[in-house]
Amino acid sequence: MKEQKAVRVGVIGAGRIGKIHAEDLATRINGAEVSCIADPLVDAAQETAIALHIEKVTADYQDILNDPEIDAVAICSPTALHAQHIIEAAQAHKHIFCEKPIAYDLQKIDLALAAVEEAGVKLQIGFNRRFDANFHQAHEMVTSGKIGQPHLLRITSRDPHPPSIEFVKQSGGIFFDMTIHDFDMAQFMFGDIEEVYAVGNVLVDARIGEEGDIDTAIILLKFRNGALGTIDNSRQAVYGYDQRLEAFGSEGMVQVQNIPTDSVIHSRAGEIAASKPMPFFLERYRDSFIREMAEFIECIRKDSPPPITGYDARKPVVIGLAAQESFRTGRPIKLSEIESGVR
Amino acid sequence: MKEQKAVRVGVIGAGRIGKIHAEDLATRINGAEVSCIADPLVDAAQETAIALHIEKVTADYQDILNDPEIDAVAICSPTALHAQHIIEAAQAHKHIFCEKPIAYDLQKIDLALAAVEEAGVKLQIGFNRRFDANFHQAHEMVTSGKIGQPHLLRITSRDPHPPSIEFVKQSGGIFFDMTIHDFDMAQFMFGDIEEVYAVGNVLVDARIGEEGDIDTAIILLKFRNGALGTIDNSRQAVYGYDQRLEAFGSEGMVQVQNIPTDSVIHSRAGEIAASKPMPFFLERYRDSFIREMAEFIECIRKDSPPPITGYDARKPVVIGLAAQESFRTGRPIKLSEIESGVR
Amino acid sequence: MKEQKAVRVGVIGAGRIGKIHAEDLATRINGAEVSCIADPLVDAAQETAIALHIEKVTADYQDILNDPEIDAVAICSPTALHAQHIIEAAQAHKHIFCEKPIAYDLQKIDLALAAVEEAGVKLQIGFNRRFDANFHQAHEMVTSGKIGQPHLLRITSRDPHPPSIEFVKQSGGIFFDMTIHDFDMAQFMFGDIEEVYAVGNVLVDARIGEEGDIDTAIILLKFRNGALGTIDNSRQAVYGYDQRLEAFGSEGMVQVQNIPTDSVIHSRAGEIAASKPMPFFLERYRDSFIREMAEFIECIRKDSPPPITGYDARKPVVIGLAAQESFRTGRPIKLSEIESGVR
Amino acid sequence: MKEQKAVRVGVIGAGRIGKIHAEDLATRINGAEVSCIADPLVDAAQETAIALHIEKVTADYQDILNDPEIDAVAICSPTALHAQHIIEAAQAHKHIFCEKPIAYDLQKIDLALAAVEEAGVKLQIGFNRRFDANFHQAHEMVTSGKIGQPHLLRITSRDPHPPSIEFVKQSGGIFFDMTIHDFDMAQFMFGDIEEVYAVGNVLVDARIGEEGDIDTAIILLKFRNGALGTIDNSRQAVYGYDQRLEAFGSEGMVQVQNIPTDSVIHSRAGEIAASKPMPFFLERYRDSFIREMAEFIECIRKDSPPPITGYDARKPVVIGLAAQESFRTGRPIKLSEIESGVR
Repeated sequence: MKEQKAVRVGVIGAGRIGKIHAEDLATRINGAEVSCIADPLVDAAQETAIALHIEKVTADYQDILNDPEIDAVAICSPTALHAQHIIEAAQAHKHIFCEKPIAYDLQKIDLALAAVEEAGVKLQIGFNRRFDANFHQAHEMVTSGKIGQPHLLRITSRDPHPPSIEFVKQSGGIFFDMTIHDFDMAQFMFGDIEEVYAVGNVLVDARIGEEGDIDTAIILLKFRNGALGTIDNSRQAVYGYDQRLEAFGSEGMVQVQNIPTDSVIHSRAGEIAASKPMPFFLERYRDSFIREMAEFIECIRKDSPPPITGYDARKPVVIGLAAQESFRTGRPIKLSEIESGVR
Repeated sequence: MKEQKAVRVGVIGAGRIGKIHAEDLATRINGAEVSCIADPLVDAAQETAIALHIEKVTADYQDILNDPEIDAVAICSPTALHAQHIIEAAQAHKHIFCEKPIAYDLQKIDLALAAVEEAGVKLQIGFNRRFDANFHQAHEMVTSGKIGQPHLLRITSRDPHPPSIEFVKQSGGIFFDMTIHDFDMAQFMFGDIEEVYAVGNVLVDARIGEEGDIDTAIILLKFRNGALGTIDNSRQAVYGYDQRLEAFGSEGMVQVQNIPTDSVIHSRAGEIAASKPMPFFLERYRDSFIREMAEFIECIRKDSPPPITGYDARKPVVIGLAAQESFRTGRPIKLSEIESGVR
Repeated sequence: MKEQKAVRVGVIGAGRIGKIHAEDLATRINGAEVSCIADPLVDAAQETAIALHIEKVTADYQDILNDPEIDAVAICSPTALHAQHIIEAAQAHKHIFCEKPIAYDLQKIDLALAAVEEAGVKLQIGFNRRFDANFHQAHEMVTSGKIGQPHLLRITSRDPHPPSIEFVKQSGGIFFDMTIHDFDMAQFMFGDIEEVYAVGNVLVDARIGEEGDIDTAIILLKFRNGALGTIDNSRQAVYGYDQRLEAFGSEGMVQVQNIPTDSVIHSRAGEIAASKPMPFFLERYRDSFIREMAEFIECIRKDSPPPITGYDARKPVVIGLAAQESFRTGRPIKLSEIESGVR
Repeated sequence: MKEQKAVRVGVIGAGRIGKIHAEDLATRINGAEVSCIADPLVDAAQETAIALHIEKVTADYQDILNDPEIDAVAICSPTALHAQHIIEAAQAHKHIFCEKPIAYDLQKIDLALAAVEEAGVKLQIGFNRRFDANFHQAHEMVTSGKIGQPHLLRITSRDPHPPSIEFVKQSGGIFFDMTIHDFDMAQFMFGDIEEVYAVGNVLVDARIGEEGDIDTAIILLKFRNGALGTIDNSRQAVYGYDQRLEAFGSEGMVQVQNIPTDSVIHSRAGEIAASKPMPFFLERYRDSFIREMAEFIECIRKDSPPPITGYDARKPVVIGLAAQESFRTGRPIKLSEIESGVR
């Protein structure tokens, strides 16, 4: 086989997730290299560049867009800038990996998707949990018929501790900050959703309520195929990051269980004790970041469609808007009500 | 300690559950004896009497009510007769164990409870799952604060296979036939419920739909204490009788898991295999029938309140009526709406 | 099908295990009835008889042997009397269920077996663990080829707490009191044993050592089929009665795991806790006593061979004698060395 | 804290394990860098150097020893060369990480240890399993008293498939190729061993027997502290790489369980299925290689003793020689017999 040139990637943003993607692209993903890293806080970019032997560093992401040697960008900037960065990168004819979500506003999303469409570049959005080996395996089993016809879906998604109140203030609310991943997972597993009903309460931290948000929620889902589902969220599971899924159907059930921190069991006079689940998403989903980026690079090299497109990534936002509306009004909301309100 | 006389029980009904209670009272429960067993099908009663060394057999339950030697009755007649049998037994000053539910009509229930109140006898209703060692232990842990403040409750309750269509025709619908146990379990664990929202579908067997019933359901619960919960039901879990519970709170989580048929693990080339859950309720909940009856006898001997009263047993019926109404109207229903409709 | 008369059993001995067998025969096993119970402590026999509606009670077991109405005996007398009771019962032409072991002396065993042979009656010995549903299932899987050719066997057998020193004084030593069950299980699973090597120590209670016994042991086994195995014993597992088995072969592994006291899991800030195994043999093996007796009755009714014969039950004694000798001499001992020493 | 210069390491050998250590030192371990990689097959070294941005490459490891800029070496050459490379590296005053084992000959080992002693450099041997997070955690629990006094140790160590016959020919035999890790783990957990008894057989592949080796073994261990233990090995566990440990004592038990490939459970009509253990050592112990090297670098930077010294690493070789002798002679062998035969 003829040797192919490495895909040269510019990383926009050197924050926590930008560093992870830069490290993976530089050291763990075959066929990729990081040509440049950009961040207005140029020191952060510089530090990452040195650690990873990245040649170019810049405070201005436009340098990446203007560099003809660069094939693709990884957009790791603040969410508020994602849509604009996608549009500019598309116009610069770069392939695009962008962190989720594109935006919380469907009109912004649609403008970004149109720009990508027009430029004919690839766009993959960072719903990384789809790439976790366990959820990936469950998805394979569901779509290959291992549970027969889908009947019931259950997603458990609980953080180990609430975020800071500063974070809560600008998080977009629990449905957009936490549940958005679960909305994506639900549709990944069982397909399109038609209606949601959301309930919630402030049970963990009263200050979260003071900011107008909730910290405990259940969202009931009706799927187009007739299946039913629930998502439950809590901002605080004292026993650790709780990330489970259960897909039940006519021929059986597939469950993704938590992964314990270690495989040690302690049997003693009072009880049998095992270790808690892995502490939080950086540990639990570490491999999924590598895998999603590897697939992004592969879809460029093979000129195949990205495993999760902009259109896929738009759907959880619609579901989130419906959940918000349901919680506000106390009644079930159809997704079509949200879509018809877009224009 | 002074020796106390055994409690003499008359068993009304010699069907499946009547035989179980008769056997337990006759052979497994200290301090009790079965004086008489009544069934219009007197042969069934006779057969049970012989096997268990029960002295008297009758076709007419009135013989039991009129027998001054009998202290208590176990009402195992068809549901439609429960309320009437309770009223007559109360008037005959017998203590009463009655199979669940008292009735599906709140007015009938209230008449029966009034009769019991007036007679001053004990009334215990057969919500046996409360007496299962596992659910009992979970309840102890929840009420003793092992999960802190209750936040989320989840009940999974799936039968191994659907009942016959003949049964479906007269079952009262899934909410009264299956979910009634889960409604009781929910209130047992987390206390009073304020609002329900129920969705469902016909996914297992179209004939169930033709009878106007559903075979797959999720019921969302709001508790008075602010906690939220879900129950999910299916008429067919091909992997066996699925009976799980998860109670989550500020300090942790308690889960009741399924009990496998055996403790054997088979590791082979393709996978690691374990046995299915116990097949159905007669196996899974066998011990709970013994324990509930033992506690009934004990509350008579000690003159203490029964562990589950008629008032406790009325509540799942209210919840079931609310679930029916929610499913019918497609909106959340408050229990107060049901109560205000009683008069 | 023509109705068969019940097998009438006389129970010899009304101690702990005698009461269990009497109760099972009287109330749980179809086709059997207890005609008489004998015990020199006639009050104990009397009490059991009343509770179970047994007609006859006697201080003298000869009354049972002389009763022409009685078909079979369950010998639950002290071990020292087993062989003699077997011989007399055989001569009285009763079928015989006898608690394990027949004796610790091969010559006594051989005399008893000869008497049974001559009388042509059935003899079943109470190695009850074979009848535990879990070990039974594992045995089925091993013999039906689910692990392919047997390679390695591992038996874990640890008591929750040491017996009283009084018991230790007359127990026959750990190999005959505890390991005898494991020796039987080993041969049940993998067939005949050729050589054993036993090591042990006093680690739990120094007083056990003062009595010349050990409280911790490992016995290494070589099977005739080339497989290898280990048994480990401890007189004290603080986390409960530990009864596990692992059979490994060319095509896989079968494991019998402990059975937890309940199915409740408690997830909390520090760890995930499950319940301990069932406390001791009366709980863990309760069902096996019923099943072994049911099979004894069935082999009489069907005139089929008993599921575990006197010859089967002789083998663990030979293995135990070899283990004793190995521990005494510090070298591996072939079973043929023990057999050649019998004469 | 003053910034410390990175430890410059020369890697000797660019085979499978050499590449792993080079990659970890170059990309995953803070405070280390790879200055040079040496291999007679200079192309293999060159390829690794390019991938990892290593500056120098050589066919001759002497270049590393002679380079005054290099602080330490990682010896990943064939086992037959380990002792010689240690001696030369010590004489060149390099700190030494060397793959296990130093040699299979105690005299060679003693010469190497003397050279290290004289030079005053650090020597750490690659018994990597000690650094696996799970075994490490179990060790912490055992040494901190979580099981009380140690009584019984059990190590299960089974490969997923036998090695090639070519490998078997030069492997040194199962006790030195496989069990050597388990011998080290046993002493790591419970301390010094006094006596071993080894049995084995050819059950997996007759060709292994033709080479004079065995493929199935059990080794019984007596520890100096009075505890007893077993190791069992098989060259073929069809269900995957089986790596378990159980440490039992007066206050409880600690178990290291296998780690499943994924956390997905499939419940279906026949059974409940889980995934197999991680396939082999490169997956199962990947992290342990990183951790052992990180600790080696740290002991140089802090001038602290290495976590596993040459003296520690000599012990499993003595145990292995005793196991060989026990298997050959069919009797238990004391380690002192091996030591007294050295001179």
